[in-house]
Amino acid sequence: MRVDNRERDELRPLIIKRHFTKYAPGSVLVETGNTKVICTASIEETVPPHIKNTGEGWLTAEYSLLPGSTPIRAPRESVKGKLTGRTHEIQRLIGRSLRSIINLALLKERTIWIDCDVIQADGGTRTAAITGSYVALMDAVQWLMSKNLIKENPLLNSIAAVSVGIVNDVVLLDLCYAEDAAAQVDMNIVMTGNGKFIEIQGTGEEYTFNDEQLAEMLKMAKKGIREITEIQKKTREIND
Amino acid sequence: MRVDNRERDELRPLIIKRHFTKYAPGSVLVETGNTKVICTASIEETVPPHIKNTGEGWLTAEYSLLPGSTPIRAPRESVKGKLTGRTHEIQRLIGRSLRSIINLALLKERTIWIDCDVIQADGGTRTAAITGSYVALMDAVQWLMSKNLIKENPLLNSIAAVSVGIVNDVVLLDLCYAEDAAAQVDMNIVMTGNGKFIEIQGTGEEYTFNDEQLAEMLKMAKKGIREITEIQKKTREIND
Amino acid sequence: MRVDNRERDELRPLIIKRHFTKYAPGSVLVETGNTKVICTASIEETVPPHIKNTGEGWLTAEYSLLPGSTPIRAPRESVKGKLTGRTHEIQRLIGRSLRSIINLALLKERTIWIDCDVIQADGGTRTAAITGSYVALMDAVQWLMSKNLIKENPLLNSIAAVSVGIVNDVVLLDLCYAEDAAAQVDMNIVMTGNGKFIEIQGTGEEYTFNDEQLAEMLKMAKKGIREITEIQKKTREIND
Amino acid sequence: MRVDNRERDELRPLIIKRHFTKYAPGSVLVETGNTKVICTASIEETVPPHIKNTGEGWLTAEYSLLPGSTPIRAPRESVKGKLTGRTHEIQRLIGRSLRSIINLALLKERTIWIDCDVIQADGGTRTAAITGSYVALMDAVQWLMSKNLIKENPLLNSIAAVSVGIVNDVVLLDLCYAEDAAAQVDMNIVMTGNGKFIEIQGTGEEYTFNDEQLAEMLKMAKKGIREITEIQKKTREIND
Amino acid sequence: MRVDNRERDELRPLIIKRHFTKYAPGSVLVETGNTKVICTASIEETVPPHIKNTGEGWLTAEYSLLPGSTPIRAPRESVKGKLTGRTHEIQRLIGRSLRSIINLALLKERTIWIDCDVIQADGGTRTAAITGSYVALMDAVQWLMSKNLIKENPLLNSIAAVSVGIVNDVVLLDLCYAEDAAAQVDMNIVMTGNGKFIEIQGTGEEYTFNDEQLAEMLKMAKKGIREITEIQKKTREIND
Amino acid sequence: MRVDNRERDELRPLIIKRHFTKYAPGSVLVETGNTKVICTASIEETVPPHIKNTGEGWLTAEYSLLPGSTPIRAPRESVKGKLTGRTHEIQRLIGRSLRSIINLALLKERTIWIDCDVIQADGGTRTAAITGSYVALMDAVQWLMSKNLIKENPLLNSIAAVSVGIVNDVVLLDLCYAEDAAAQVDMNIVMTGNGKFIEIQGTGEEYTFNDEQLAEMLKMAKKGIREITEIQKKTREIND
Repeated sequence: MRVDNRERDELRPLIIKRHFTKYAPGSVLVETGNTKVICTASIEETVPPHIKNTGEGWLTAEYSLLPGSTPIRAPRESVKGKLTGRTHEIQRLIGRSLRSIINLALLKERTIWIDCDVIQADGGTRTAAITGSYVALMDAVQWLMSKNLIKENPLLNSIAAVSVGIVNDVVLLDLCYAEDAAAQVDMNIVMTGNGKFIEIQGTGEEYTFNDEQLAEMLKMAKKGIREITEIQKKTREIND
Repeated sequence: MRVDNRERDELRPLIIKRHFTKYAPGSVLVETGNTKVICTASIEETVPPHIKNTGEGWLTAEYSLLPGSTPIRAPRESVKGKLTGRTHEIQRLIGRSLRSIINLALLKERTIWIDCDVIQADGGTRTAAITGSYVALMDAVQWLMSKNLIKENPLLNSIAAVSVGIVNDVVLLDLCYAEDAAAQVDMNIVMTGNGKFIEIQGTGEEYTFNDEQLAEMLKMAKKGIREITEIQKKTREIND
Repeated sequence: MRVDNRERDELRPLIIKRHFTKYAPGSVLVETGNTKVICTASIEETVPPHIKNTGEGWLTAEYSLLPGSTPIRAPRESVKGKLTGRTHEIQRLIGRSLRSIINLALLKERTIWIDCDVIQADGGTRTAAITGSYVALMDAVQWLMSKNLIKENPLLNSIAAVSVGIVNDVVLLDLCYAEDAAAQVDMNIVMTGNGKFIEIQGTGEEYTFNDEQLAEMLKMAKKGIREITEIQKKTREIND
Repeated sequence: MRVDNRERDELRPLIIKRHFTKYAPGSVLVETGNTKVICTASIEETVPPHIKNTGEGWLTAEYSLLPGSTPIRAPRESVKGKLTGRTHEIQRLIGRSLRSIINLALLKERTIWIDCDVIQADGGTRTAAITGSYVALMDAVQWLMSKNLIKENPLLNSIAAVSVGIVNDVVLLDLCYAEDAAAQVDMNIVMTGNGKFIEIQGTGEEYTFNDEQLAEMLKMAKKGIREITEIQKKTREIND
Repeated sequence: MRVDNRERDELRPLIIKRHFTKYAPGSVLVETGNTKVICTASIEETVPPHIKNTGEGWLTAEYSLLPGSTPIRAPRESVKGKLTGRTHEIQRLIGRSLRSIINLALLKERTIWIDCDVIQADGGTRTAAITGSYVALMDAVQWLMSKNLIKENPLLNSIAAVSVGIVNDVVLLDLCYAEDAAAQVDMNIVMTGNGKFIEIQGTGEEYTFNDEQLAEMLKMAKKGIREITEIQKKTREIND
Repeated sequence: MRVDNRERDELRPLIIKRHFTKYAPGSVLVETGNTKVICTASIEETVPPHIKNTGEGWLTAEYSLLPGSTPIRAPRESVKGKLTGRTHEIQRLIGRSLRSIINLALLKERTIWIDCDVIQADGGTRTAAITGSYVALMDAVQWLMSKNLIKENPLLNSIAAVSVGIVNDVVLLDLCYAEDAAAQVDMNIVMTGNGKFIEIQGTGEEYTFNDEQLAEMLKMAKKGIREITEIQKKTREIND
């Protein structure tokens, strides 16, 4: 049995609130258990230098832990004057994942900024950020279409993410912080709504894993992604 | 009549939610009209070098706008690698104000970190941050007392803040962003619950003001502070 | 009686030397007691991006303590790689104050840089910097007019600044460092030559103040500003 | 057929030169095709603050591209003043991978620094860096044992890394830069010498992949790792 | 004839004012023609980590151009967040030169900070800085002795510096900015009061020079150094 | 006799390998005794802002020690976020020296980047870097001519550099690290192939030197430069 009495292959309760704040065209509060992340999608009518004059758009993501989001206060990166390696890694993952399901040519020369700010951290913040950002992105795209700024929907697919891992030699779905800290293997999976892989990142923490364990983790991740995708769909219907 | 139909000396609706997140001992969401700020108070069992071995504690504040909090996305200071002058100015104001109502000797050698993160910005974020941080600080102090880490309450007074200003030659209380952007004079007032001044910061924006205007602004600010102090008191009673 | 035998409402001796250095169009050494600040006004024929193509000009200020200006050497900010919050706050105050008395449209698309470098610090450096910078600015404007670069004088008013404060429950004018360090309330006032307020910044240092104390401080500040304004006027007549 | 006429599952020629430079206890030049990386292992008799007084050691890795290593000169990160996200990601991967096969307790309170500096870049620099660093690490450990600084060999296993990917819907082993730039899926695999996974990082580049493709990539990676492990073993026997 | 009507081997008028500011134990304003530099020597009762517990002291120098010191305003290095290569080079030269004439063991575990801040720049600022800093250093040492903090004078020699150069194929002493900008060779010489070399830095600016030219430059530099040394001596006698 | 049994005026074995790496148009490994430096010359088809639209080109140099190049690991400057003063000084010397023998107008509006990365450091890295960079520069120029990007050879002369110094009162040529660390005087000389000076940088390390010692050092340096120039010439003939 797990610290929060879940089954091995059971997700934490997932709640996605749309229109959480009012100025960004997409704004979502995603909660998975005790992890809470604000995901906003903002639009800027320019693109970075490397794609200027290509006629294409761009999507980029930034991620941050609010200092008060963790039991031991997390120092503010703006005060230290630089991002940690962890932050770099996470925001690159979020941006890369979302770019894989959007047709940037249809977006035209504008940038979508995805901002993921964790207000409460209990493990799985990067996967929650991807899951929630997709919904914020969808709303920002709708806003662009409603303003006639773009005509065709550039989103090719839905996307969701979940963690799996091995703790005490047992494969678990959607690790909370206590499980993550004790994990022998930690794996984050990003998939499309129709069951294709976008990203697999698995790491043995002073531990190695074999084919059978990998297969079990992938299977469990797929189950989780299917359930998350369902909740994303319902969120869209219900909240508007 | 004002953009939001308020009277000249009328505050925006003020809502203070305690226990907004669960890891920081003090965590408040303060909403004044469309401005929303998360204020947390975290405790660290060390002090900065300049007061080590004095037996006293320290309180310091940090402030940030989430990128998605404004109609035009605010660039993340951690990415630029340094704080703007505006951020420095605001967080120094918050820290200085709160230090003026706490007996740091009673706190003993520990630091209280106040973090004010604006999730929606419609003017008055710095005064809302002070108003909300006081409540978060109060909860952190209670937590310290409940754990027997300190015996005597180090808080000497309550504290609240509000803005006043002159727009089109008219004195107004609690300016929203549209009013602030058009203001001839912008003034932030921090006062104790029993009506003493802690801080007065008034600035003519390509404009000057005279004694009568100053007197009217101060009077209106006092009225606002009295009302805010009442709401702070009720918050404390109701929320627990 | 005060540490330097002044009356409560007596300014320190104020000396303003124009043409202190020869390359900047405005260059002033301002001395108030033992505080000495070099204020230069330099002209650059461009403007910052945010006002390009508006036809207007810009004025900005920077402030620094030379390392050897204080009894305990002040670390050089260029070596630390960033400005302290105190420096940010002071240079924003200087720039904002001077911008309030200049018609930037008449300046046309050029920038006036005000540089205030403290060579000896005994309290009141920010107010001395404003008082001296106004004279440097006046000289730079005259230089622009003598070169026919602008036709109309863009200065709308004169400007001066002074500190007041409460020390041992007594209101004092123009605090030196020893008084400032012991102050219960520290207030900086910026006013025009004709007696209007531009900026009021008053702070209780672990202390609060009431209406009567505020009124007394403002009255004393006005007296000081009147005297400083007279000295600024004479400086102009005498030095050329 | 591939750009360099290899079979789909054929590694590029792999050469590992030990003792490439003389001051670091481990120093390797690893060449895989046109990719060339200097990997050194240096020893420092201290540990970072977070493991001081634990009795354990530490291993950390840094990675850099020499500016002249690429057809278009790569700007020097020391001049820009910060590491790119890509560099952070790579050096975290190298460090994490090597830490998974070393018993840090046996190392005692000292740090092994792994430095991977790419002098010629033709794709696969991060996997070459891991493969080469393992050999440099082995030499540094031998040096520690030969000096009697440690008694027991802390290395638990050998480690090697290789890339696989999908290009034009075909799975390929050990991608060169031209293939990598065109890849639909890019995957880096780190494994132990006895065939266990340490790290899997697979990314669809505006593309998704399914179970069959994943299985084929993993199988091909294992073949590559087996061959690399053989070459690592021979290097050790031959070079001394 | 030169731009300022000097002979080829004639120094600019050199004025050294001691006790220029009052808080640093050594404070000098050195003027050579239109170049003016404030040199202070401050004392700190600690040493940098690399000489802690050696019983020896340290001397270090910092150099800066005030923004208003040049005809075109010099951007402030604290705002750019880093020192230019030129600044690094100059302050290393000043520090190294002064360390060569002081017995750091006699200084005991304290640091002398030399700060050279140029308030007006017309060429030769680095040599003026060395010439002036020696006098400030001498005063700081006297202060230490007068306070009985050290017993023996640690200064081994006097030190002075001057520039020579080749302009239009003619060797000149003590170049002003206009000459320096047109120089084919620029050379800075630091010597002791008794005629020994401490530092020679000569650079052809898209030009080369031969033995005869080198000999002539060195001869002229020696003449200049002798004269500067005399002025340093007189300064000491007169000013006290 | 010297640590490596050389005569006082004997160079260390000097080996210059051209075409060391394949992507930069000029790429040299220069070895002088145990010092080994990779020097690459890369070409970029733009120029820095200050010479845009002048029709001229630019040449700039960067220098770095690989962390594993020294017996005690050298911290990576990209991680510290800034260059040391030593690095600034060296790369300015390399760039200035090479610019003195190239006609930048003939280069047209492009930049040559010289990168000197030390892979093994045993003293004399800056002079080896200049000696090797000249050969890399020559190859890059040839590449430009072979591509018809420039028609006339912009190189005006060859260039080489060597160190001399005084150790135990004896003048020595080409100091290795052990000698350099013990040197009383350390001097770096840069000369053209036909015996003219480009740069002289001599420093007494807590020591002074006289005319005779200077003369002897210069004579020995010339001998060394002549021999190095011969080896540069042969390298060119042999390696192609």
